[in-house]
Amino acid sequence: MINKLIKKIKETGAPIVVGLDPMMKFVPLHIQKKAFDEYGETLEGAAEAIWQFNKEIVDSVYDIIPAVKPQIAMYEQFGIPGIAAFKKTVDYCKQKGLVVIADIKRGDIGSTSEAYAVGHLGKVQVGSKFYYGFDEDFATVNPYLGSDGIKPFIKVCQEENKGLFILVKTSNPSSGEFQDRLVTTKPGAREKGTENAAFGDKPLYEIVGEQVARWGEEHMGDAYSYIGAVVGATYPEMGRALRKIMPRNYILVPGYGAQGGKGQDLVHFFNEDGLGAIINSSRGIIAAYQQEQYASFGPEHFGEAARAAVEDMRQDIKQALENR
Amino acid sequence: MINKLIKKIKETGAPIVVGLDPMMKFVPLHIQKKAFDEYGETLEGAAEAIWQFNKEIVDSVYDIIPAVKPQIAMYEQFGIPGIAAFKKTVDYCKQKGLVVIADIKRGDIGSTSEAYAVGHLGKVQVGSKFYYGFDEDFATVNPYLGSDGIKPFIKVCQEENKGLFILVKTSNPSSGEFQDRLVTTKPGAREKGTENAAFGDKPLYEIVGEQVARWGEEHMGDAYSYIGAVVGATYPEMGRALRKIMPRNYILVPGYGAQGGKGQDLVHFFNEDGLGAIINSSRGIIAAYQQEQYASFGPEHFGEAARAAVEDMRQDIKQALENR
Repeated sequence: MINKLIKKIKETGAPIVVGLDPMMKFVPLHIQKKAFDEYGETLEGAAEAIWQFNKEIVDSVYDIIPAVKPQIAMYEQFGIPGIAAFKKTVDYCKQKGLVVIADIKRGDIGSTSEAYAVGHLGKVQVGSKFYYGFDEDFATVNPYLGSDGIKPFIKVCQEENKGLFILVKTSNPSSGEFQDRLVTTKPGAREKGTENAAFGDKPLYEIVGEQVARWGEEHMGDAYSYIGAVVGATYPEMGRALRKIMPRNYILVPGYGAQGGKGQDLVHFFNEDGLGAIINSSRGIIAAYQQEQYASFGPEHFGEAARAAVEDMRQDIKQALENR
Repeated sequence: MINKLIKKIKETGAPIVVGLDPMMKFVPLHIQKKAFDEYGETLEGAAEAIWQFNKEIVDSVYDIIPAVKPQIAMYEQFGIPGIAAFKKTVDYCKQKGLVVIADIKRGDIGSTSEAYAVGHLGKVQVGSKFYYGFDEDFATVNPYLGSDGIKPFIKVCQEENKGLFILVKTSNPSSGEFQDRLVTTKPGAREKGTENAAFGDKPLYEIVGEQVARWGEEHMGDAYSYIGAVVGATYPEMGRALRKIMPRNYILVPGYGAQGGKGQDLVHFFNEDGLGAIINSSRGIIAAYQQEQYASFGPEHFGEAARAAVEDMRQDIKQALENR
C-alpha cells in the first residue's frame, strides 16, 4: 500500500492528502436542507448531509490527488448513522482509486489493539467466515502504550499489505507538553547528583521517532516502510530532525493551511528524492469556498473551489521544493 | 457522575468495574449457535452473539457492582453491526442503573477532540435539535497530545456532569517504553555538561499524573474529581507514588486477574477513606466459566460463574484492604 501511495503521488505530482473532516459548518446550506428535508433534523439527516458533501468533494478532486484522510471523530459524533457515513465515504473513495488513510488515532494493548487493527485494516473471523469491518488502507495510531500497542497493528498490516502512521510530534500548540519533554538517556541518571546526566538528553518525540524507525524495519515496501509517522507542519525544525531519524518512514504532515503551516515550512519533511512526506489539508480544501480567496465560486460550487485549492496547494509545495 | 459512582461503590461494597470485552472465544457456543442460526455467520450474527452474551452477564451481576467498562475495540472489530451492539450494551447497562465507563481511549486535538467528546459524552447539534450519539457516563482518554486534546473533553464533562479516566500508567509490559522515561525537569538541562541536571528527573507518568491532578481541579465532585486516571494494577509501586500525586482523582485500575495483578497489589491505589480506586476485571469475570475454579458452573451457566467471580473478587479486595 505504501508503494501504491508513492506511485499515486508521482502520477499526480501532488504529495497531498485531503482531510475529509466534514464539520457541519463546512457543509453548504443547500446540502443540509436537502438532507434534512428527506431525513429530518436527525442523526440520519446529519449523516446524509456529510455523505453528500463528501461525495461532491471526492468527485471534484479524486483525479488530482493520491489520497484522502477521513477523520473518524467527525463522523463518530453523529453516533451510528455518522459511522455508517464514514464507512460509505471510505468505500466510495476506494472505488475512485484513492488511498484511504483513516485518521482514527486508536491505540490500546495486546488483544485490544489487535481488535482495532482487525476492524479497521484486516478481517475479523465470524464462525468459519471472515469479514472486513471498515477496510481502510492506512490508520493513524497513538504510541503512548508502547510496543504492545503497536505490534498487533503491524502484524495485521503485514498480512494485508497495509500501513500505519504513528503519532510522533503532533501539530497542536500543546503537543510539547509531553512530547517535547527532555528524556534522560543515560542509565542511572535518576540518582541525585549524577554529573552530566543531561549529556544524552533528547526530547520524547525523538525517542518515539527512533522507535518508529525500528518498527518500520519490520514491514518495508520498496523504498519506504509501510509504517509511517505523523509530524506536524507547525514544527518545521523538529520535522528536519525527525526526517533524519526516520529516513525510510513516510511522514504524514498535518497543520498546513488552517493551522498555520506554509509550503516553505514543509521542505524539511521531504527527502532528497522529493518523496517521504505527504501533506494534509482539511478545511483549507473542503471549506475553501468559505475563504475569501475562493469565495467567488459560491457555496453551490464548493467542489470546484476545493479543486482550485488543491491545485494552489500543489503549486505552493512544488515551488517550495524547487527553491530549497 | 463521580458522586454517583462513589455512592454505588459504597452501596455494593465493591470497588469493582466489570470489563465487557466480549471476545468471541469467551461467548459460549450455545449463544453463538443461536445468533448464527438467526443471522448467519455474518457481522450481524457476531454482533447479536456478543449482545446476548453481554445481556446475560449484566443480568447476572448488575445488583452487586457499581459500573461496567465496555471496551469499544471488541465491538468496532465487527464494523457497524458491532458498534450497534456496543450502543445497545451501553443503553441496557444504564437502564439497569450501572455507571458506564466507555473504554474508548480516544484523544485528538481541538475540534476533533471536541467531536469525540460530544459524540460519546455530550450532545451533537443537528440543525435546531440536539442528540446524544453514544451517551456513556465516563470515557477513557489518551493524553499524548497534551491539554489541547483534553480540555475539550473536560468542557463537555462539565456541561453534562460526566467524567474521564486519563491514561497515566498502563498495565501492559511495554508501558514503560515511553511512560517510564525519565524526564529532565530542570530548565536548561539540555546543554551538554550541565551539572546535576538529573536532580529533578522524574518518570513521564508522574508528569502526566501531575497534569491530571491539575486538570482534575477544573471539574470537582464532592470528595473526588470527575477527572480520573488509569494506572495498571501490574505496577503497584508506581500506583503508590501516583496515589500521592493525584489524591483527589479516582484511579481506574486495569490488570487485575488475567494480567497478573492481585488483591494485595491494589491496596496502594486506595486512599485512607477506602475510596479513590475502582478495579477492573474483564475476562476474569465474563469468562470465569472457562477457568478451572468456576468450571463446574458449565457454559450454560456462565452468568452465575461471573457472579461468583465478582463475589470472590470483592472478598479479595476487602481482605487486602483490611490487612493493610
